[in-house]
Order: sequence, then C-alpha cells, then structure tokens
Amino acid sequence: MNFTLNVLGTASALPTTERYPSAQVLNVRGRLFMIDCGEGAQVQMRKAGLSFLKLEHICISHIHGDHVFGLFGLLSTMGMLGRTSVLNIYAPEPVREVLEHFLTRFGEGFLFEINFVPLRMKEPQIVYENRTVELLAFPLNHRVDTYGFIIREKIPQLNVRKDAIRQYELTLAEIGALKRGEDVIREDDRSGHSHVILNADAAYRPYEPRSYAYCSDTAPFPELVGWIRGVSLLYHEATFPAGMEDMAARTFHSTTLQAARTAQEAGVGKLIVGHYSSRFPSVDFFLDELRAVFPEAQLAHDMDVFELPLLKNG
Amino acid sequence: MNFTLNVLGTASALPTTERYPSAQVLNVRGRLFMIDCGEGAQVQMRKAGLSFLKLEHICISHIHGDHVFGLFGLLSTMGMLGRTSVLNIYAPEPVREVLEHFLTRFGEGFLFEINFVPLRMKEPQIVYENRTVELLAFPLNHRVDTYGFIIREKIPQLNVRKDAIRQYELTLAEIGALKRGEDVIREDDRSGHSHVILNADAAYRPYEPRSYAYCSDTAPFPELVGWIRGVSLLYHEATFPAGMEDMAARTFHSTTLQAARTAQEAGVGKLIVGHYSSRFPSVDFFLDELRAVFPEAQLAHDMDVFELPLLKNG
Repeated sequence: MNFTLNVLGTASALPTTERYPSAQVLNVRGRLFMIDCGEGAQVQMRKAGLSFLKLEHICISHIHGDHVFGLFGLLSTMGMLGRTSVLNIYAPEPVREVLEHFLTRFGEGFLFEINFVPLRMKEPQIVYENRTVELLAFPLNHRVDTYGFIIREKIPQLNVRKDAIRQYELTLAEIGALKRGEDVIREDDRSGHSHVILNADAAYRPYEPRSYAYCSDTAPFPELVGWIRGVSLLYHEATFPAGMEDMAARTFHSTTLQAARTAQEAGVGKLIVGHYSSRFPSVDFFLDELRAVFPEAQLAHDMDVFELPLLKNG
Repeated sequence: MNFTLNVLGTASALPTTERYPSAQVLNVRGRLFMIDCGEGAQVQMRKAGLSFLKLEHICISHIHGDHVFGLFGLLSTMGMLGRTSVLNIYAPEPVREVLEHFLTRFGEGFLFEINFVPLRMKEPQIVYENRTVELLAFPLNHRVDTYGFIIREKIPQLNVRKDAIRQYELTLAEIGALKRGEDVIREDDRSGHSHVILNADAAYRPYEPRSYAYCSDTAPFPELVGWIRGVSLLYHEATFPAGMEDMAARTFHSTTLQAARTAQEAGVGKLIVGHYSSRFPSVDFFLDELRAVFPEAQLAHDMDVFELPLLKNG
C-alpha cells in the first residue's frame, strides 16, 4: 500500500552538478505516476529502481524544456524495451505537437500507444481515476499555460466494527447501509417505537486517504489554497529565497515565504520544496525561511524519497 | 596545449545507472569540440568542469536518439546563459529539421546563431579548420546515414636549429626556406660550385601533431582502416563482445575483436572503446578480448579523461 514520492530532479531552468531538471515519480500502491520529465529523468528513474513498465501516467505541467526534454529518451527506451501497454500523457495542448514530431522522427517500431489528454480546465478536474485513486489537474500561474496535479486515494468504504455486529445482531442489509455511511433505523414491531443505530457508533473509516499536490512552476494566486486544502503532502516550488519576491513575480515563480504561506493557509500535512534557482548552489538557508512560517517543511533534493505511511483506524 | 578527450557517455541505445548515452568533448588547445550529444550531456559537461562558452563545434554522427537527445537541453542552457557566438553543428541532413523544430518551439530569446553544416561526403573531407587544427568527417556503416570524425592538429611549420643558424651563417631568406621544408642551395661565386644544406640537417618538426578519430556507430567496412591510419587516439564502438559478430552485423555495430582489428590494421597509437550494449552491466571482460589483438587498448567509462601529451622534438 505504497504512497511514495521519488524526487528525481530539483533544478529550475539551469541544471547543476547536483540537480537535474524537474521530474518526479509517485508510486501509489505499485502504480507509477510521473510528474514532469526533465532531461535525464530516465536515468534518474533507473537509479531510483523504478520500473518503466509500471509507469502508466505522465503528467506534464507545461512546455518549458526543463519539464519535458526527458520525454524523448524515456519514450524511446520504453519503445526499445518492447512496451505494449498504453501510456497516458496529461499535458497542455502545445505538448501534443512536440510529441507528434518526436514520434514521426524517432517512434519507428513503437508497439505502444500514447493516450494524450490535453489539459485546459479552469479549476481542479479529475482527469483519471481507478477504483482507489484519482488524478486531478488544475491551472497554475506561470508565463505559459501551466497545470498542477493532485493524486489522491479515494475515500474508502467504511468498515463496521465486529463488536457492533455482535452487540446489535446486525443483518447483512444493515451492515451494507452502515458501510455506505448511513444510520440504521429499526422499527420495533411490538412497541411501535423506532430505534436508531448511529453510523458513528458502529462504523469507521479503515484508513485515512493520502493525497499529494504538485505546484510548479507557479507564482502565488488566490484560488490555489482552496484547491489544495488539506493534502497530506504538498510539493511547491521555491525558486527563490525570501526577499526576492520581485524577481519571483517577474518570472512567475515563488519564494520560500510564498510557498510556506500557501502550505500554512491550505493546512497541508507536510510541505516539500524544490525547483531551486541555479544561482544558489546551496539552498540550506531556504529551510529556516520555510519553517519560520510552516514548521512541517522540508527541502527536496534529487533522489530524495518521501513515504506517506498508511494510517489505519479501528 | 591541451589535447584532452572527456568521455561523457558510453551507453548504447539504452542508458544504465552507470552509463549515459554517447557524448564526448575534445579539448584542443582550449577550444572544445563536442562529438555526439546524448541525453544528459549538459550535466555531464558541468560535472567534467567543461565550459559551455568554449564549445564552438558540435559533431553529430547520426540521428538516433541516444546521440542527439542532449542537444535540446544543451542549446537551451546556452540560450539562457546569453551565448552570442555562433555555434557550428556538423550533422547529417535529417538533423537539420529536428533542430529547426526545436528552435521554433523552444528557441525564443536565443541570441546566438547556429551554423548548420550538413554532412554528405563519400570519403574524409575537411569541414572546419583554423590555423592549427582541422576537423574531418567521413561516412561510417550504420543503419542510417552516419559519420565519423577526425580532429587533428595540422603539421606544424618546421623549426631551424640554432646551432645550424650559427654554423651555416643562415640568412633570413634561407631560414624561411628551411621552415617551409626546402633545402638551401648556395652558389659559390668564386669556385662556381654549388653547396647544398639539406633540410634534415638544419630543420626539425617542433612537435608531433596529435589526432583523434571517432567511429561510432558502425559495422566494419574496408575503407575505414585507410581513412583513420596512424591517428594518435581512436575511439571505436564495441557494442558487443567477441562471438556476437552476427548480432553486431544485424544491428550495424561492431564487436571488441572488430574494433581491435581496425585499430591494429590502421596502426593507431591507442584504442579506446565504448557504446556498450546494456546487456553487459560489466564490460571488464571486453578488455582481454581487445588486448589479445591490440595491446594499446583501453575501456572508456563515463567521465574518463584521456590526455594526449604534446611530444616536443629538438
């Protein structure tokens, strides 16, 4: 029941010797979601021990080179490895033409199809879901059409406590109702009175659904806090340190302070930041700035792994 | 007076955790020539401490992804760093269209021009030269139009020995003739006899010009030995070990034995090999196979540096 984020690259436009361009892979229960695919992502994936074949979804935030130039090598490798299963790519419309050009020039012999899902929503919208997980995309505030992503477990069906089954001698129909979140109402044939078993007295959520939000590249904007409210883990760019808000605004990026305020206002569980400007070979001082506002903050570095454990109830 | 090869990538089609795709940089007297530009080349260059601004020439052997996918990131980085000087790219014609597509989609704000030099020769031909160095390209034998490269120092002007200047009381005109490789012929006015000062008795080559040949990707072919005869350093692909000649032939690649035989027959100074198939996580056993045929053989690994010292005479 994994919910594990592999950070593959934390550079902004210019990579450094320590930082590859933006790329991440979220492992949700064994299925891999990639978010952004900067140059070198396929080798970083190999180094992280992530299987290309388990990668079913690639989310691309926007069409700047540091977020897409790894696609060509990654897709070529999948082709050479004989992949046959469909690969879903969620990206702004302009990425489509770049992909098509790539496939025409370099896609000979590919045995798999790409399902291209263009992003054009104005607010969070589900773009993929299966029985347990859903993927949402929503607009960010950057120089070009850019999208953030939320990947989250669905709210699970409730469990009914075993002692409640015994105590109330619950029928199958009543258990079904409790699992759906309903109360059980019993009519007493003899007395004519009804008796209610409250859902909260017999049922419980078996685990807390986990969620991850990715917000890069973006300048702050008012709607964001509401859209990512309460996620377990937030990755937010912090291209610049505090005090460089003007520079951040000019380039449609964020500072540490802005990232931390967003995390705080959205009440997220934990904040990690990345997409650091290459002018800061060390970003250790970013951490104090973040924690002054939001204590549950951490710096992401290339090849860092963030694991969200499953919190079981009952 | 550098002549230093930085090997940035030694993988073939599929990179591994230890091997990036094909890319090299030859530093000739402070000017950088890149040969092939696989994904990740720009970060490998940074790790090797090579300056993007000193890179004036990029040679691309052919249009397979593992030799070109690093171009996009590298050119983008040059653009963002504000490069203004012309960048020369020597490549087969199909690379032109890929570059143009890239520039249209990602080249906004570039301040430098790309001088694209299409390769279409049938035998070695100089494609660039300056006062001291020349770059030649020649066809290889691969599945698609592919070229090898020779980068070599020009044969230097001769020096005249100081003791010869004194002994023969050489005039400036005579010194000039000796430097050009001519003999000096003196008519004796009184006796009517002539006297010859042989060039070899007064002049010498100040240093041995160094040369490097790059042959990847290629299957063996008859003309190659003659074209690369006597180079100081040969990089030849050895995608497969001995015994896999059939596989090599089918994919238009070479084995260790074929690379070593080419080196031996061409009488090169030293052989290095690379472009290893990903099915061999360790290629240590390639070395014995190479040295059985050509003792001056060495395996190249990512980030290896091969320095050719200047051998001075006189």
